[in-house]
Amino acid sequence: MSAENQEQRQLLQERPVVLVHRIPAFQLPFAGVRTHFTFFDPLLHSPESTQSFLSRHATAIRALLCVGPAPVTSETLDLLPALEIVVGSSAGLDHVDLQECRRRDILVTNAGAAFSEDVADYAVALLIDVLRSISGGDRFVRSRLWAKNGEYPLGSTLRGKRIGIVGLGSIGSEVAKRLVAFGCSIAYTSRRKKSAVSYPFHANVCDLAADSNVLIVCCSLSKETHHMINKDVMTALGKEGVIINVGRGALVDEKELVQFFMRGEIGGAGLDVFENEPNVPKELFTLDNVVLSPHVSVVTPESFAALEEVVIGNLEAFFSNKPLLSPVQLD
Amino acid sequence: MSAENQEQRQLLQERPVVLVHRIPAFQLPFAGVRTHFTFFDPLLHSPESTQSFLSRHATAIRALLCVGPAPVTSETLDLLPALEIVVGSSAGLDHVDLQECRRRDILVTNAGAAFSEDVADYAVALLIDVLRSISGGDRFVRSRLWAKNGEYPLGSTLRGKRIGIVGLGSIGSEVAKRLVAFGCSIAYTSRRKKSAVSYPFHANVCDLAADSNVLIVCCSLSKETHHMINKDVMTALGKEGVIINVGRGALVDEKELVQFFMRGEIGGAGLDVFENEPNVPKELFTLDNVVLSPHVSVVTPESFAALEEVVIGNLEAFFSNKPLLSPVQLD
Repeated sequence: MSAENQEQRQLLQERPVVLVHRIPAFQLPFAGVRTHFTFFDPLLHSPESTQSFLSRHATAIRALLCVGPAPVTSETLDLLPALEIVVGSSAGLDHVDLQECRRRDILVTNAGAAFSEDVADYAVALLIDVLRSISGGDRFVRSRLWAKNGEYPLGSTLRGKRIGIVGLGSIGSEVAKRLVAFGCSIAYTSRRKKSAVSYPFHANVCDLAADSNVLIVCCSLSKETHHMINKDVMTALGKEGVIINVGRGALVDEKELVQFFMRGEIGGAGLDVFENEPNVPKELFTLDNVVLSPHVSVVTPESFAALEEVVIGNLEAFFSNKPLLSPVQLD
Repeated sequence: MSAENQEQRQLLQERPVVLVHRIPAFQLPFAGVRTHFTFFDPLLHSPESTQSFLSRHATAIRALLCVGPAPVTSETLDLLPALEIVVGSSAGLDHVDLQECRRRDILVTNAGAAFSEDVADYAVALLIDVLRSISGGDRFVRSRLWAKNGEYPLGSTLRGKRIGIVGLGSIGSEVAKRLVAFGCSIAYTSRRKKSAVSYPFHANVCDLAADSNVLIVCCSLSKETHHMINKDVMTALGKEGVIINVGRGALVDEKELVQFFMRGEIGGAGLDVFENEPNVPKELFTLDNVVLSPHVSVVTPESFAALEEVVIGNLEAFFSNKPLLSPVQLD
């Protein structure tokens, strides 16, 4: 290490620089919060000053804060040879090349459970909305059809429904807790059976679907889970089956889902996420048994406050060599 | 009693006639079910044959089945001098002149708890919808604004919200049970404090509103509760406050509510019921912090099946002199 680099490193240890990595649509949710770090956000600087900053500091930067779904690829990592940690701000980190991080011994953290309750609330509301057609009822009243047409179609009750939870992590567990209070029965699939949990476990999602009225998809997206909800799963779920997706769009084979709707071979869906956001398959726009949502299941001030705590907590833990709050297992 | 009347009475005891009283928009939900009774539904007959039927039987009819909100007034009762019971098919019986029934010693039953869980589910979904703008998000996506405008406004989290339940009967209790699972805190007002319940009790709705983020209105409509949610209550609830109404429209002073929205002095509302259904104040159609619903919180096949059980059960109990399943206290 050159003398200059050593000097930089010392400076950065006193008040470390955290490089912010984001796409323009995502703001740093806690800009202005007083921390022990200097956040450098290239999108708040001119390309020239960013270039100048990075040419001086890139080789010493140890922490990258990844805001929202900004991709962290091996090319990103190549630019930051001293990087030791990627602090993520979302629950799912499918935009981060985790294998590459593991290969380089770079730690990764996610949002932990900061969003879990808000996402679980949202999943439950999407489910009741699909079963009872609340958004559809609101459209019906606003289009002044109530006074004109009278009757609105029957919904379907929640109690007694068999709910299959795909991914019983922090979000899935909160969903289960809520739906028990509505008189639903719960089963789940997950990478492995959870010994602390009494809900029935199914080793694969097809078996779970065959035994469920509703699938609630809240696992993380990876190569293994990509298009996990495929044709076979939809067939097993059956004509009255409902799919709720609050995970990632690509967990569901969206083209196949549209085909199932076109053929009337699925009961309904509540979708907060899509394969190619913000684009939504246009075939879904006219369906009344679908609730469409612009990827906002986490979007509350309370979630952002909880996120701030996790992100700052992870950074503080990292820079003071304490255990991270929400490390991602890179296995 | 004349000999003819006695003969009729005997006939009716073997297979009693139950007179159906409904408005055209409401069907007898269990037409065709095999029972020990003969249902006579005037709307299925010509005026002449109804007239002929009633002229022969009206003086002997002991049971009236009131489907939906068909009014039972003292004039209705005058036509049926032998009437002993009004079997209602709704949870609220504001369309039945209960005082007049009491004066004439006519028993009254309602839907009991047949609808309670579906209504409670619906109330919870309306609440999450208002806080997280699910119907609004669906409108946003369907109008193709997501790809055009990008960001959707922040919602507000459910956990930690102070929920004031107005009327802790069968529906209110189910609402409370559900919202506890979402991390809300519960308080209530009711005609009297319930000794079996640990939620804090407020003797009047204004105090409850002052202490709540959300009011969920699920009490019955009577002279005493008419416009119970008035200007003072809305003021006490405050600018961020939310009102959910799954009871009856006239529990809320609707004109006042519209004024509060026009002045931005209330946070949001989820309304399944209105003062002058199917008419909804047009000022509400353009608001994004309001969810409008065409009085369908009870409308599921499962609720109707449960209702059938309660109605038939009440009739069978009445005709065999057993205790009624869901008597209404006429006090």
